[in-house]
Amino acid sequence: MPHDLDQAILLAPAGGHRFAGATSPAYANMVGPFGGTTSAAMLNAALLHPERLGEPIALTVNFCSPLVDGNFEIDALPARTNRSTQHWVLELLQGGEVAATGTAVFAQRRDTWSAPEATLPADVPPAAGLPSLPKVGFLPAWVSRYDMRFLPGFAPGPFDGQEQSHSVSRYWVRDEPARPMDFPSLAAICDSFFPRIFVRRRKPGAIGTVSLTTYFHADAALLAEQGDRHVLAMARALNFRNGYFDQTAEVWSDHGQLLASTHQMVYFKE
Amino acid sequence: MPHDLDQAILLAPAGGHRFAGATSPAYANMVGPFGGTTSAAMLNAALLHPERLGEPIALTVNFCSPLVDGNFEIDALPARTNRSTQHWVLELLQGGEVAATGTAVFAQRRDTWSAPEATLPADVPPAAGLPSLPKVGFLPAWVSRYDMRFLPGFAPGPFDGQEQSHSVSRYWVRDEPARPMDFPSLAAICDSFFPRIFVRRRKPGAIGTVSLTTYFHADAALLAEQGDRHVLAMARALNFRNGYFDQTAEVWSDHGQLLASTHQMVYFKE
Repeated sequence: MPHDLDQAILLAPAGGHRFAGATSPAYANMVGPFGGTTSAAMLNAALLHPERLGEPIALTVNFCSPLVDGNFEIDALPARTNRSTQHWVLELLQGGEVAATGTAVFAQRRDTWSAPEATLPADVPPAAGLPSLPKVGFLPAWVSRYDMRFLPGFAPGPFDGQEQSHSVSRYWVRDEPARPMDFPSLAAICDSFFPRIFVRRRKPGAIGTVSLTTYFHADAALLAEQGDRHVLAMARALNFRNGYFDQTAEVWSDHGQLLASTHQMVYFKE
Repeated sequence: MPHDLDQAILLAPAGGHRFAGATSPAYANMVGPFGGTTSAAMLNAALLHPERLGEPIALTVNFCSPLVDGNFEIDALPARTNRSTQHWVLELLQGGEVAATGTAVFAQRRDTWSAPEATLPADVPPAAGLPSLPKVGFLPAWVSRYDMRFLPGFAPGPFDGQEQSHSVSRYWVRDEPARPMDFPSLAAICDSFFPRIFVRRRKPGAIGTVSLTTYFHADAALLAEQGDRHVLAMARALNFRNGYFDQTAEVWSDHGQLLASTHQMVYFKE
């Protein structure tokens, strides 16, 4: 049996630069599918393309409308290929309409001077000692496709409508069931954060991510080292203003290496 | 006389979704033009498009190759227009080749609950009391198009090759000569940071931004309030690894409002 994630991002060549896929009920969200799998499927189109060069460095996906459950096509066009970098233009279509736009930058990395700058908080308890988020019925299906273990003091809620001063969340997360990490699963995890405004205002509301950018600090070797163990996900917002807020987040390996940094702008209704 | 920035982002309709522009010697960089004006020109194509709806929320520009000095065309395609949001696919061409790809999200904002989350450091001295970065000959031309005033302790250098533990920079900046802020000038300022790796390693080197994303927290009303006064720009890197590093940055009004958050991935040679 393939993993649910592989089913959700499964693409068949459909001629030229086009790939055909379908949304997966296993990753259903409140309306349409989980944006993380949409983003991962768009990345996967470039990864599967026969002209692909190297590994992903940057991915931007703009959600133009909620996807409807069912088939979609992704066009992945290598707009420019250089000696060691490649630029992709991505588009997801449903019923002939553009449902998501995107771009990606791929590159062949070389060994160079390297150095971390951001560091992990000193007091992060290991995933093994923390409880998993219970699988409760009112959460959308995609949440159950992850094992999430919130750090003490950094879980969302209680949802009492009492606004708090920050929207910080921190949790260990891996695919459920466990699955070795690759670029699509990392891209999907980068959209696994609950909306910052729910955390800040301690209440749910109508929201929708409009633009999501992920930077891949990990190369394939580092992802292979990570395997299927939990990664640490940390997010916060910088600002909420007149219908839009941002999220800025990081995903770390359990050995303290930054795997991805990821940012998004999100619409909110009121 | 138009401002040099307006000359650099000047576009003429060239049929269909196409606009024609040209690089400006006033914003020359080490190789080709300053990426900030390229980014601002691509945003300007969407702003000038007769079908444009609302104001920019998110802008991503991917630099596929250094631009050559001279003419360029920008295609700005409204890929999807909803009731209050609009999604743009952008492409900059030179000699028939793709030199930059991009996307933008525009929206009509409404008054909603709003709240800051990030806050300014408490000890930021006002721009008026700080010296401007001297206009020295070895810096590329674009640097002189800005009045930059670094905060004590947050200027780059000395360039002695002694690696330091962080790449943080903070400075007040405005167009030189002063020019009322609008979305293109804010987009350009979001690329006005010196490369983080120069700051961290205290030496210059071969670098090139591959992907730049800017989130506009300010709406037109907030930009009008800002006028032509200095804004505060703060940047740091999270990670440098095998040929690529990121930059995460914020631009604040002098009244303590977040105007933009901006992120980029940058190639470096060694």
